[in-house]
Amino acid sequence: MFEIDFLINEPFELESGEVLTELKLRTTIYGKLNAERSNAVLVFHALTGSSRIHDWWNGVLAEGGALDTSADAFICVNYLGSCYGSTSAKDLKRRNSRREVPIVTTRDIVRSTSLLFEYLGVHRFKAVIGGSVGGMLALQFAVDFPTVADEIIAIAAAPLSAMGLALNHIQRQAVARGDLDIARKIALLSYRSPRQFEDRFGRKPNRNGEDPKGTIQGRFDVGGYLDHQGAAFRKRFELESYELLTKTMDLFDLSDEDIVKIRSRVSLVGISSDWLFPPADVRALAARLSGFGVDARYHELLSDVGHDAFLTDTGEISEILREVLSPPEITYEESEIGRSPLEPERLAVGCS
Amino acid sequence: MFEIDFLINEPFELESGEVLTELKLRTTIYGKLNAERSNAVLVFHALTGSSRIHDWWNGVLAEGGALDTSADAFICVNYLGSCYGSTSAKDLKRRNSRREVPIVTTRDIVRSTSLLFEYLGVHRFKAVIGGSVGGMLALQFAVDFPTVADEIIAIAAAPLSAMGLALNHIQRQAVARGDLDIARKIALLSYRSPRQFEDRFGRKPNRNGEDPKGTIQGRFDVGGYLDHQGAAFRKRFELESYELLTKTMDLFDLSDEDIVKIRSRVSLVGISSDWLFPPADVRALAARLSGFGVDARYHELLSDVGHDAFLTDTGEISEILREVLSPPEITYEESEIGRSPLEPERLAVGCS
Repeated sequence: MFEIDFLINEPFELESGEVLTELKLRTTIYGKLNAERSNAVLVFHALTGSSRIHDWWNGVLAEGGALDTSADAFICVNYLGSCYGSTSAKDLKRRNSRREVPIVTTRDIVRSTSLLFEYLGVHRFKAVIGGSVGGMLALQFAVDFPTVADEIIAIAAAPLSAMGLALNHIQRQAVARGDLDIARKIALLSYRSPRQFEDRFGRKPNRNGEDPKGTIQGRFDVGGYLDHQGAAFRKRFELESYELLTKTMDLFDLSDEDIVKIRSRVSLVGISSDWLFPPADVRALAARLSGFGVDARYHELLSDVGHDAFLTDTGEISEILREVLSPPEITYEESEIGRSPLEPERLAVGCS
Repeated sequence: MFEIDFLINEPFELESGEVLTELKLRTTIYGKLNAERSNAVLVFHALTGSSRIHDWWNGVLAEGGALDTSADAFICVNYLGSCYGSTSAKDLKRRNSRREVPIVTTRDIVRSTSLLFEYLGVHRFKAVIGGSVGGMLALQFAVDFPTVADEIIAIAAAPLSAMGLALNHIQRQAVARGDLDIARKIALLSYRSPRQFEDRFGRKPNRNGEDPKGTIQGRFDVGGYLDHQGAAFRKRFELESYELLTKTMDLFDLSDEDIVKIRSRVSLVGISSDWLFPPADVRALAARLSGFGVDARYHELLSDVGHDAFLTDTGEISEILREVLSPPEITYEESEIGRSPLEPERLAVGCS
């Protein structure tokens, strides 16, 4: 792995019309780009992730892994507006004439990312992959750079439903009152499933020994867990970046005009227990893409974890990534009996 | 309807050991108690409700309605700790030696309610009915007063799951920071379903005309709706009561020892789209009661609304209440073919 801070001193105009005079983008590269530059894979991180893929997809990204660093080169760029080395929302607010956090769209992030391709000598990607907000960006990439990627893989992503917009709205209000930890805790509820919480915590008292029956403040185990997560998040993330990137998420949408531009093959992955991006929404999006002639496939990851399964269930996500990136060759007999390599038992494959 | 403020000047000991020297309980009565006192029905309100049933169950409670005020007398008591006329959490905090909001359990509330029975000359209830927290209280009543009610009807209620405890935990933290409106908005997400939000708001911009793409603060319609609800709630409810009653909810549980005490017939109603009290949990509770020999039945209300369907879907809830309270007579043929009057098509009836 190596890390580069790209400093771009050309004006960059956001979709909003605001012009940034300079831009820093932290980029992490795993594996080696070959001489022909034919083995590049672009990976988009999730809402609060960084360009260091191994910090959040360890086990998926590995030598011999589903994202095989001995064969391909994996490039991940920390988003414009995030706070892990790139120009952050706080930087943008400081430079903004109204001292406001500007709106940065998925289109802005994808376009800023593309500024690096020339530096890296990459003009084509074998695949563009992401989960959650990363999946939105992979889809935005498919729209804005229709001839650059062979394969788009968007996991647990679709335009946000009203419930998703509501969750982000409340979280930004908590952030505006300085309560980044409360925002994170609300988010965590939407990243996990009731079933997973029940299996893990149930109605057990907090493991530190406090008694939920003793005082109003006494916590059950799930409360102690959430508080721990909230405090840890407050230390590692910035208020302004949270405001900016949840808004980026809100505004992602795909119009019919967007969809007809797509030329890459698109694989959408829904997670069975996800209620932030319900699998039905992901499946419906795959059907919509197919309806416009896009070569789109739907895969379902069966998990009790909820939305976060794309990060936690590395075995299952690896299997899906392997299937999509290196489909087994179809023998004559297999194809004759109508079995596609994308239909092993563990996958509920829908429209294609 | 008439309203009474009961002032009780005898010491009342809470489960926590704290002794209250006086107690005020606001009570609303609809219909007329007959001379034999054989037509009394006790109704428990939900978390933020009042004793005025017609304010939240208009259409269910009516002359000739499912709760028929021309036949029976319906008694509802505002909870100890609530803020609609009874001794409120704020009062309790003021009188508490540590100036703390005390813990009031479902057992405390049920027992305080029972103090009124003698004044009213009621020694038996035809039914005890409640939804959500009201359902928890109806079940607690079944445990603590096993021979007083013929029928217990608990709608969308069960001991809270880890996800429910998590939601209340985060809400109380918001309240502790003075953000009662944020707590209410989080709660609303759990009272409604993703499907209902999507049908009602989708990705529409706020109806006041503001542009969600213009600024970070620009809202979608669902955001405007939630803010309106949050502001209205802040005006009508007290912080301390919210802390106290969500804790009451958290602590409600049913041990095996509790369940074996129950002698009333129990009808549990799950709501198909409820994710705060998932129908599977309500159904499992009915099975557990049956396992201990309780005459328990499960009914399912089919609705897209989510938890709040017990308040909004008055037609469906009325049908279920009528079925339970006045089951049609079973003819020999009907019972012979094994069709119970509780199994019309709209009801998915489980264990009984």
